[in-house]
Amino acid sequence: MYRIDLNSDLGESFGAYKIGMDDKIIPLISSANVACGFHASDPVVMEKTIAMAKEAGIHVGAHPGFPDLMGFGRRNLAVTPEEAKAYTMYQIGALNAFCKAKGMKLQHVKPHGALYNMAAKDYALARGICEAVREVDDSLIVLGLSGSEMVRAAKDLGLRVALEVFADRAYEEDGSLVNRRKEGAMILDEKEAIQRVIRMIKEGRVTAITGKDIDIKADSVCVHGDGAKALAFVEEIRRALQKEQIKICTLDEIV
Amino acid sequence: MYRIDLNSDLGESFGAYKIGMDDKIIPLISSANVACGFHASDPVVMEKTIAMAKEAGIHVGAHPGFPDLMGFGRRNLAVTPEEAKAYTMYQIGALNAFCKAKGMKLQHVKPHGALYNMAAKDYALARGICEAVREVDDSLIVLGLSGSEMVRAAKDLGLRVALEVFADRAYEEDGSLVNRRKEGAMILDEKEAIQRVIRMIKEGRVTAITGKDIDIKADSVCVHGDGAKALAFVEEIRRALQKEQIKICTLDEIV
Amino acid sequence: MYRIDLNSDLGESFGAYKIGMDDKIIPLISSANVACGFHASDPVVMEKTIAMAKEAGIHVGAHPGFPDLMGFGRRNLAVTPEEAKAYTMYQIGALNAFCKAKGMKLQHVKPHGALYNMAAKDYALARGICEAVREVDDSLIVLGLSGSEMVRAAKDLGLRVALEVFADRAYEEDGSLVNRRKEGAMILDEKEAIQRVIRMIKEGRVTAITGKDIDIKADSVCVHGDGAKALAFVEEIRRALQKEQIKICTLDEIV
Amino acid sequence: MYRIDLNSDLGESFGAYKIGMDDKIIPLISSANVACGFHASDPVVMEKTIAMAKEAGIHVGAHPGFPDLMGFGRRNLAVTPEEAKAYTMYQIGALNAFCKAKGMKLQHVKPHGALYNMAAKDYALARGICEAVREVDDSLIVLGLSGSEMVRAAKDLGLRVALEVFADRAYEEDGSLVNRRKEGAMILDEKEAIQRVIRMIKEGRVTAITGKDIDIKADSVCVHGDGAKALAFVEEIRRALQKEQIKICTLDEIV
Repeated sequence: MYRIDLNSDLGESFGAYKIGMDDKIIPLISSANVACGFHASDPVVMEKTIAMAKEAGIHVGAHPGFPDLMGFGRRNLAVTPEEAKAYTMYQIGALNAFCKAKGMKLQHVKPHGALYNMAAKDYALARGICEAVREVDDSLIVLGLSGSEMVRAAKDLGLRVALEVFADRAYEEDGSLVNRRKEGAMILDEKEAIQRVIRMIKEGRVTAITGKDIDIKADSVCVHGDGAKALAFVEEIRRALQKEQIKICTLDEIV
Repeated sequence: MYRIDLNSDLGESFGAYKIGMDDKIIPLISSANVACGFHASDPVVMEKTIAMAKEAGIHVGAHPGFPDLMGFGRRNLAVTPEEAKAYTMYQIGALNAFCKAKGMKLQHVKPHGALYNMAAKDYALARGICEAVREVDDSLIVLGLSGSEMVRAAKDLGLRVALEVFADRAYEEDGSLVNRRKEGAMILDEKEAIQRVIRMIKEGRVTAITGKDIDIKADSVCVHGDGAKALAFVEEIRRALQKEQIKICTLDEIV
Repeated sequence: MYRIDLNSDLGESFGAYKIGMDDKIIPLISSANVACGFHASDPVVMEKTIAMAKEAGIHVGAHPGFPDLMGFGRRNLAVTPEEAKAYTMYQIGALNAFCKAKGMKLQHVKPHGALYNMAAKDYALARGICEAVREVDDSLIVLGLSGSEMVRAAKDLGLRVALEVFADRAYEEDGSLVNRRKEGAMILDEKEAIQRVIRMIKEGRVTAITGKDIDIKADSVCVHGDGAKALAFVEEIRRALQKEQIKICTLDEIV
Repeated sequence: MYRIDLNSDLGESFGAYKIGMDDKIIPLISSANVACGFHASDPVVMEKTIAMAKEAGIHVGAHPGFPDLMGFGRRNLAVTPEEAKAYTMYQIGALNAFCKAKGMKLQHVKPHGALYNMAAKDYALARGICEAVREVDDSLIVLGLSGSEMVRAAKDLGLRVALEVFADRAYEEDGSLVNRRKEGAMILDEKEAIQRVIRMIKEGRVTAITGKDIDIKADSVCVHGDGAKALAFVEEIRRALQKEQIKICTLDEIV
């Protein structure tokens, strides 16, 4: 039977600032990437987010980002691999404290925003992040872009790896995401997006922006919960997966 | 045989900013209170500090503070007990990741600066901090001001507690520290300071500022490493302790 | 003819985080208190806020707060008067740059949140804030709680002062606001709230929580724009003011 | 008569953290680049720095940097030109408040660290910074790397520009600084460094790393005050300039 994890970014509120519809998206996903106080979130938000995840029975991972709250961690920052390693270690540890307090086991680590994108292409940076994972807890799963340097670094270090795909993004022939500024980078048609996801899961193939079919492996699909439209799309994906008899599982069950 | 722990605040540098003479004080103490990135420190500094502590064979504790880097955590901030709990949990977790990476066991938790002072007098706040300790790891020792609300809260929650005394501070009859702004608050004569410490350890007594002798229990003495004079004083204390056959131990050995 | 200023806190978004319905409240008020990057806002938000205020033709003031983004500046922080002075100076200057760039004149300064509340009762702190105003630009109006230490300090320094009243808050006999935790602190009935405002403007009197009538002077009423209900209330106040022939003016016209 | 400005970065302390020997370097320079609270400094430090500069009679400029205190503004951050503009405007305004309070006129703006280096090569970014300068106060001088995009942008916007050269850095044939990682990037011989500076001032020529002589214009030389050796070098440069009858002037006198 085919299996897939649905992951989403949660716990991105900060102090008086609210972002996201965490209570609405939680029942629809199997894994939550929880912000750790650098690009978003604060300790009070983290405590609440872990409590909500526990109650819903979903698994949680750390979502470490750049120390750039003003830019929401979305701007490239030229950190060294050593800095990336220390930042990742710090954020995993901070989130893990809340998990331990609730008797939960941290499941995975997925870098956020610009750190995710940079690590997908920069092996040294990716390796710094993966070393942090290995040294803190080598049973953690690294969730990285399918085909990326992040995945390569995680495998080189002997870590468990889960491969992430995107429903709404086009791929280059080498398996990398098409730059958002390029025409055709976003898959706007929802039905097409869902069909692509199902094909990635069942056949391990996707049509690149050039028209050529390429291999791709999908353990987890990233979905968004930041609006009514995004939520409706997740519900549609869930229906389609069910119809295709693809089971939604946590990463722990898949990897 | 009498035993005492010598503790000092370490790892307070931040980015390009250096504070403290960590390499000089580490060989003279048995326990280090390591800053966790709120009032001071950053992940890179934390990693280095834990590595230095490991190499020296001393034990480490978390030194959580207020999220007030500009004020170095020394200014009272009106947080709720829930906020104090979440902030403490976060900081313990963050530091613990670096300990785990180096194969070290976190030994204790000692709040920093204004958080320490406020929690010494405010039971609800102290309890919030202690709940964080219990929920993250109930084998951690709480290091609190001898006779304070912090100690009471830690005991109420069934936590291991170590009692801290100060060589250079005068005490009120109720065992609290004399406010720094009051005349006589600081013990300026070094010999007197050392004699007071030895009496606290051996007799469990100290002369309050009023002239009356009071009971006090000493598990750990706080010493400073921020200057040549401070370091010389620590060396003097060590010589005096040795002469009096008081053994310097880690908190784990004492509590 | 009676005159009143309607002021509201604006520009409190930060990076990816949105707060407030600035575009909806701006057409309803005469003066905006604009956050300056400490308790809320960032430079990009400030630039947009000043541009919106200019287009709407309302006047703007600086809304300096504590450097506590995590607590939105709502938590008491034990700063010295010197720190309060420097923080205020910094924030006024930062906001003023955006005003100068748009050819606008900064009209007033109103401390935010906990800084406002602390300065209302602490003369030394209030004086520190007012010294910052005087040294940066002594033509700026200080907007402070009617009857507060802030107003006293501003007058002592020869600054222009505007007196702020609250529609939805009860008053003690000494003119201070009833603590929110006390029963009856909030005026929940909207009609009563509006009648109280009109009486404050026309008669300079308000009934304290004890039942006794006290003197109060009103130059400006603080209104909120953080929700449909808040906006509806502002529209109701505006209708009532019009009916009573009370003209809504900027502070510059009143003081 | 030949003239040159000596500029140095000042006011980089933060809270309890001290950096630099400001009191020692101030008497040796003519212009100070003062940190503005983003990559370094805080309002209390800024107030003290401006007071020291005023007492010494040197001129001051704003030294805006990235909002990256943890990295001291030395790490590239992928901001948009609009963000760079808003950040620059904010920081100029903040510093200017302290200047106004002391009756001083802000003289110039020199971006700090990674912002300086990025703007030297990226015209759009440089233009964003220069637009901020023009909109806040078009009498401010832009201090930029001789031959850089920053200088080009400032000229395009009709701003006053001062050209900065470095005593201890090698140049490429196109006038850009040799990357620090390249061999020969640093001029280690102090006498050679000083001779190069004097030739740049008098002849407007310097020998590039390739051996070819290139044109270069020098209005200001950047010197450092972060150690006894750095200070000794500044004194040596001063002696050499005096011997060559090159007068040390403020930027305002030169541009």
